[in-house]
Order: sequence, then C-alpha cells, then structure tokens
Amino acid sequence: MKELTQQEQQFLQQSIRVVPNFPKEGIIFRDITTLLNDKNALSFLLNHLSERYQNKELDFIVGTESRGFIFAAMLCAKLDLPFVPIRKPNKLPSSTFSCEYELEYGIDKVEIHQDAFKNILNAKILLIDDLIATGGTALASLELIKKAGGQCIESCFLINLQDLGGVEKLQKHCSVYSVLNF
Amino acid sequence: MKELTQQEQQFLQQSIRVVPNFPKEGIIFRDITTLLNDKNALSFLLNHLSERYQNKELDFIVGTESRGFIFAAMLCAKLDLPFVPIRKPNKLPSSTFSCEYELEYGIDKVEIHQDAFKNILNAKILLIDDLIATGGTALASLELIKKAGGQCIESCFLINLQDLGGVEKLQKHCSVYSVLNF
Repeated sequence: MKELTQQEQQFLQQSIRVVPNFPKEGIIFRDITTLLNDKNALSFLLNHLSERYQNKELDFIVGTESRGFIFAAMLCAKLDLPFVPIRKPNKLPSSTFSCEYELEYGIDKVEIHQDAFKNILNAKILLIDDLIATGGTALASLELIKKAGGQCIESCFLINLQDLGGVEKLQKHCSVYSVLNF
Repeated sequence: MKELTQQEQQFLQQSIRVVPNFPKEGIIFRDITTLLNDKNALSFLLNHLSERYQNKELDFIVGTESRGFIFAAMLCAKLDLPFVPIRKPNKLPSSTFSCEYELEYGIDKVEIHQDAFKNILNAKILLIDDLIATGGTALASLELIKKAGGQCIESCFLINLQDLGGVEKLQKHCSVYSVLNF
C-alpha cells in the first residue's frame, strides 16, 4: 500500500505548526490546524489517504473525538463510507460500550454506541486519529471496536510521536500506518 | 439555491434517532450518529450540501467543536476547501480570539486562531454546525469569524430546533440554511 516519499513527508510536515510549551512547559505541540487551513497540503493528504484505502474493503471509518473526527470524516466523504464516532463519556445518547485507559495522572474513558456497526458481522473498520503518543486512546478504541463487533483492518494516524512507543503496543493487535513520524 | 423537498427531508429525518430524556429528563435528543453510520442517508446529505455550495465562492469552511467538525470536514473534502475549527477554551495552541456566550446556567466560551484565515482579506466563510437551538454558539462563532477577518456567506445547520428561535437571531447577521426543522 502506498506510503509517502521523504520529500512528500517534508511537504506535509512543513504545514504543521510547532508550538513550544503547549499545553504545558516542555511539551512541543504539533498544531495540525495549519495543515487543515492550507488547501494544498490538505488536498495532498486526503488524496494520499484516499489512494491508500480506496481498494480496501471497508464498512465504516471510526474517528476519535475531537481532532480524529476531522480526518476520519474527510476520508468518509472521499471514499463514500459511513462514519462512526468514538466519544468522551456521556456524549453518546444511546446504549454504549465504554473502555477506560490510563493517563499520566488519573484515568480517562471513551465510548462507542453498541449498535454503531449496525449488526454487520465482523464489520471491517478503519480507525483514524490525528496523533498517536503512548497509545492509550488508540488501544481503548480498538477494544471498543471489538466490543461492538468490528474488526479493525488498520489504524491510521497523521502523526506518530515515535519515542512514546504507542505504535509498537498497537501493532500487537492491528496493522498501523502513521503518515508522519516525529 | 437548492433546498430539499418534503419527501427528501423525511428520508433524512428517518435516519436520525430520537432519544427521549437525554442528556436530561424532558429533553428529546436528536441523535445524528444514526445518520452518520447510514451510508445512503449520509451520501444523500453530502451530495445535497455539495450541490448547494459548489458554485459559491468560498475560501474556508468553519466547523464548531465537536459534532460540527464532522459535517464541516466532510464538506471540505467534497468541495476541496480548507477547514478551520472553532474550539472550546484552551484547545487551540496559538494566539486566539475568544467569545463568551450565555448558557442556561452560566457562561461558555469558544475560540478561533487569530490567523485562521491566513490574512485573506474578507475571507469568504461557510459556517457549519450540526444543530441550532437558541443560537448562542452560532452567534459567538459569527463574532469570531468577524474578529479573524472573515465574512460569513452562510451558516448551515443540519437540524434547527425551531421553537428555540436561534435562526431568527442569526438571520440578522448572516444568511442561514437549516436542512431539517424540528
């Protein structure tokens, strides 16, 4: 499946703003809003992802709240596929499955509707989020996809913070593609 | 500009789940996740919105966190337009404009990046959100678009809760289109 050349990666990287010390001292934040409002960079990214996934047999694309919604929704529109959100607690109104995961301090939780995949047997899922760091949200999302009867074909991240090891953890469960590695 | 026939509206309405007493007693919640995971309904909606806006001169589509992200992002992909998020406080990492608005109890705030429209003079904006009720978020969003140098060509909502009067307030400032009225 198609991956980007180093030159193409550089082109995309240049559109991502680097914000030091956000959200707190010592963190280098990768700001994807400057990619999203850059017509050329955004078109390039979406065409790349469309090419990569257009011949995959997929039933749903799952996006994680909130930034994951953006890329997942865009690819749904490109590939004419339905969209399923994984949300923070108490946002989804019908019966949900939930999964807790550890944060640096404390725990967090994500949820999916129990009928998200409309009872399609082993629904084929592409999971999309903007960023993978330690992999906590991603692993919880995989768990939710499984609980709801889905089968994750691949999980796709725009940005992989490689030093934090999330991809390695995730690869034990599912194919992983990260567009850019920092 | 194209609007839906009554029959087409009914087709879309049927894909939206009604959840009584969410998020609290007495509220009838319109659950758009059942539209999003319905391939036919979603395709129909996106084709309709594409048709409506494809010949409009637009520079950016603005989506409001979180559900607004989904529809705005999808239409960006369809129309090959860049995306700008309006977010809840302290989520955007660079310099922002912010605007407070009143809730039933207390106040809330939304933010936009100051350079969201890349210094394009009077950038032409389409604002998208999933739902308009009293119009608080929408009015604040219009204010932010103006502060950032944009000009809102139209604000578009999938669902208008007509009894709450948001559309009337908004129409004083900007053209408003609601796909479905409840």
